[in-house]
Amino acid sequence: MKDFPQLENAAQDRAVQQLLHWSLANGLVLHPPNFKAYSTDAAPVTLFPTPFPRSSFDLAVRVQPVFNRLYAKIAASDKWLSSIVDQLTEFDQDFTGRLWRTYLQAKADGITQPLALGLVRSDYMLDQNTDQIKQIEYNVIAVSFAGLGPKVAHLHRYLNQSGAYDAHGGSEQYYDEGDIATSEATAKLAEGLARANDLYHGQSGSGSPTSTIVLFVVQENERNVFDQRHLEYTLLRNHGLKSRRATLAEVPAVTRTDPDTKQIFYSPTNDEISIVYYRTGYAPTDYKSDRDWETRLNLETTRAIKSPTLLSQISGSKKVQQLLTDKALVERILNDNVGSSPSSANEKVTSEEIDLLLQTFVNIYPLDDSPRGREAKQLAFSNPERYVLKPQREGGGNNIYKNDIPSFLKSIPELQWNAYILMDLINPPSHPNKIVRAGEVYHEQVLSELGIFGTIVWDTELGTVHSNTTADYLLRSKFSSSNEGGVAAGFGCVDSLYLY
Amino acid sequence: MKDFPQLENAAQDRAVQQLLHWSLANGLVLHPPNFKAYSTDAAPVTLFPTPFPRSSFDLAVRVQPVFNRLYAKIAASDKWLSSIVDQLTEFDQDFTGRLWRTYLQAKADGITQPLALGLVRSDYMLDQNTDQIKQIEYNVIAVSFAGLGPKVAHLHRYLNQSGAYDAHGGSEQYYDEGDIATSEATAKLAEGLARANDLYHGQSGSGSPTSTIVLFVVQENERNVFDQRHLEYTLLRNHGLKSRRATLAEVPAVTRTDPDTKQIFYSPTNDEISIVYYRTGYAPTDYKSDRDWETRLNLETTRAIKSPTLLSQISGSKKVQQLLTDKALVERILNDNVGSSPSSANEKVTSEEIDLLLQTFVNIYPLDDSPRGREAKQLAFSNPERYVLKPQREGGGNNIYKNDIPSFLKSIPELQWNAYILMDLINPPSHPNKIVRAGEVYHEQVLSELGIFGTIVWDTELGTVHSNTTADYLLRSKFSSSNEGGVAAGFGCVDSLYLY
Repeated sequence: MKDFPQLENAAQDRAVQQLLHWSLANGLVLHPPNFKAYSTDAAPVTLFPTPFPRSSFDLAVRVQPVFNRLYAKIAASDKWLSSIVDQLTEFDQDFTGRLWRTYLQAKADGITQPLALGLVRSDYMLDQNTDQIKQIEYNVIAVSFAGLGPKVAHLHRYLNQSGAYDAHGGSEQYYDEGDIATSEATAKLAEGLARANDLYHGQSGSGSPTSTIVLFVVQENERNVFDQRHLEYTLLRNHGLKSRRATLAEVPAVTRTDPDTKQIFYSPTNDEISIVYYRTGYAPTDYKSDRDWETRLNLETTRAIKSPTLLSQISGSKKVQQLLTDKALVERILNDNVGSSPSSANEKVTSEEIDLLLQTFVNIYPLDDSPRGREAKQLAFSNPERYVLKPQREGGGNNIYKNDIPSFLKSIPELQWNAYILMDLINPPSHPNKIVRAGEVYHEQVLSELGIFGTIVWDTELGTVHSNTTADYLLRSKFSSSNEGGVAAGFGCVDSLYLY
Repeated sequence: MKDFPQLENAAQDRAVQQLLHWSLANGLVLHPPNFKAYSTDAAPVTLFPTPFPRSSFDLAVRVQPVFNRLYAKIAASDKWLSSIVDQLTEFDQDFTGRLWRTYLQAKADGITQPLALGLVRSDYMLDQNTDQIKQIEYNVIAVSFAGLGPKVAHLHRYLNQSGAYDAHGGSEQYYDEGDIATSEATAKLAEGLARANDLYHGQSGSGSPTSTIVLFVVQENERNVFDQRHLEYTLLRNHGLKSRRATLAEVPAVTRTDPDTKQIFYSPTNDEISIVYYRTGYAPTDYKSDRDWETRLNLETTRAIKSPTLLSQISGSKKVQQLLTDKALVERILNDNVGSSPSSANEKVTSEEIDLLLQTFVNIYPLDDSPRGREAKQLAFSNPERYVLKPQREGGGNNIYKNDIPSFLKSIPELQWNAYILMDLINPPSHPNKIVRAGEVYHEQVLSELGIFGTIVWDTELGTVHSNTTADYLLRSKFSSSNEGGVAAGFGCVDSLYLY
């Protein structure tokens, strides 16, 4: 493994100028914090790629289709989810509870589209203690940075090729080009959308696949809109597939649904919508009114393929992640029939694959009165430095780390503790990379989080899987001194992999 | 010829949002007016491509190599230019005069590189009176928009393909895709640089062509830097050729020249510079001090190929443009030997080609005591509405139009009139396009100026031409109510061609 290049001041200044120009010239950008529709800032990125073991990366890639299948199985039927619905919703009635009630209403109204599309991302950190990758979370809705992430690898390869990393007063390449891992996540997610669109056409057996459009349901004044636009451009360029955008609030005005066929159309251009792709709707604040919830309900019953469905979104809750640390349950879901049809197991997952998947889990405890919950309540006070406390409620607050845990728990009634899960803290290596943000260079140790994208199209009635892919990666890094890592939110930055 | 699409308000709003996002996501950008190194604004562009007759476009493309050759011949020797030096410099001693004196000094010191590279652009307007294209000016230094120009054609094709131009409530393509002319100007100018670099290596017979670099000599805080960067990225991607940037003021500190071989090196990385490419030095204000002039002199005597040489830059003066309206002179320069060697005429220009070239000229008059000058002095007062008065002095002021001419001439001593040339006003068609600028949509008639890029590498000693290409186009449009058209300066915008 190579050390980071040590650049003298003038050389670093040149490299930073190259980095800013390249980012701005190639759409590695965000709208500025004071949102302006015709302006961008360069996205925060690292100056160098961050080292990551190739074997760990390969493992994350390998288990992705298994994760895709596991979560698809969960969301192919409401049987198991309804058996745990109290645990899921007890402490999050307003959000997870409402998603569930909206699902039940949609089911009562009639769900007309059996196909579902997953555009997902599984996030990991490398754990120094075990030298294994450990899953942080599995994201099933509005996963971001498939558009911008791959550009950082291009940027770092460009800097390398131009000689900007040469620390010896020359213009040589510092890294072997192949060691900076490229990512085709944009193209692969676009491919997932195109595959679902094709299957939509297969159902009706009529019309050209490019006669329908994809509806991106988005947030208003999204700073990270270019991440989405790169996906739209790739969809149009590679597949001839058009897309339109609307906020939840705009959807009723710009769509109409045929009451008989449940086909949904984008009214301004009269195009049929084959896929409703959510880049909003994941946080309680995304629903500004009851009307937005009603819109979500109405979209769920249309013929368009949803990414994700309500059940799929619910499957991404932290409570499900905690329950899945039970090997027997994972085996039962993957290999037994939890779908509504016996044909759901159209592809067997091997025992080795299940073991690899389980290896990526850390311990996650409930804080309830089960034996495991009681154990956790002790650990939270005896060894708080080993844990992070995460609220089950979506968008309901930030994580509580290490020695802040005991005093926090003491500050609330014990009956409320079960609103949280206690999770092993992962101990990732830190690296002396540099972050360029708003033109300034910050030099601190960074921690990195690897995201592996995946796409899956499955039949929620039959349980069959039509396509299931791993879709390259995202690397995000943050200062080791900070605990939160959202890039668009203002912390951390986008990075690329130097594989060793 | 199709009319412009008539979009309803909501459809136009969507199209403008698509336009802004695409521009910002694809580097069709400028630094904002309050320069900020990590921010950009979308460049001002038209919403639609502007119609232009295909036959006129084809003619402009066809005569480009003839223009390249004509100006190369002029700059292949100082014989003719020195014969007109008084006319060239009399009213512009500080700039054209200084360029000339700097050239004489370089010649005395010893010019070591016989090759010269031209990256040029010939600008035209369509004249409604004659239905012919008429040349506005021939640009030999720092020609811009080979980077951004082609992106506008991509943008308009994207809008067309996505259905944004469909005025009938659908998502159909409004234009046949092939009618929106693409431009490969970025790649073709990069190809010109690569060709000159190859020839540089051919001279020494040693080293890999990618071991040398191109030095971009640039202005400080250039808002239009992305136009240049796209050229640099293409140079690296297509040819593996690296580039570095320095202002005139920085050049002495970041370069060193071998006193014997006159090879010049970029000191920070010790790379040999094969080409000095000026994106500054065209206006008097680009030289902040005598030291900058000395830098220009020193660069002229290095072994690096200059784009342009001092003689080449002088050949682009308005006085030369005025003198070239004499057919006999053009024929003599093109077909006779004005170079320093009889072998200069290595490729004959046909009489038909000369006629086509001359057809693009409007009448340009001196305001001196020659018979033609005396005629012009009368015309300026009898029919001022047919003319524009242009100062010969570079960067010395703005043009004077039509009925402002008589009062302006009366306001200065007649001896000073010769500092100007009087030029036929071209009467271009106007079109009801729309301009998007800082997020606002302006709807007025626009006038368009077509620029055809060219590249040429020639030997100034032998007069031989090594390569000579036409390099696609730029279209700029401005409100018909404004007289000036610089995009980066804040007027007008970049456009693309709808050929009919």
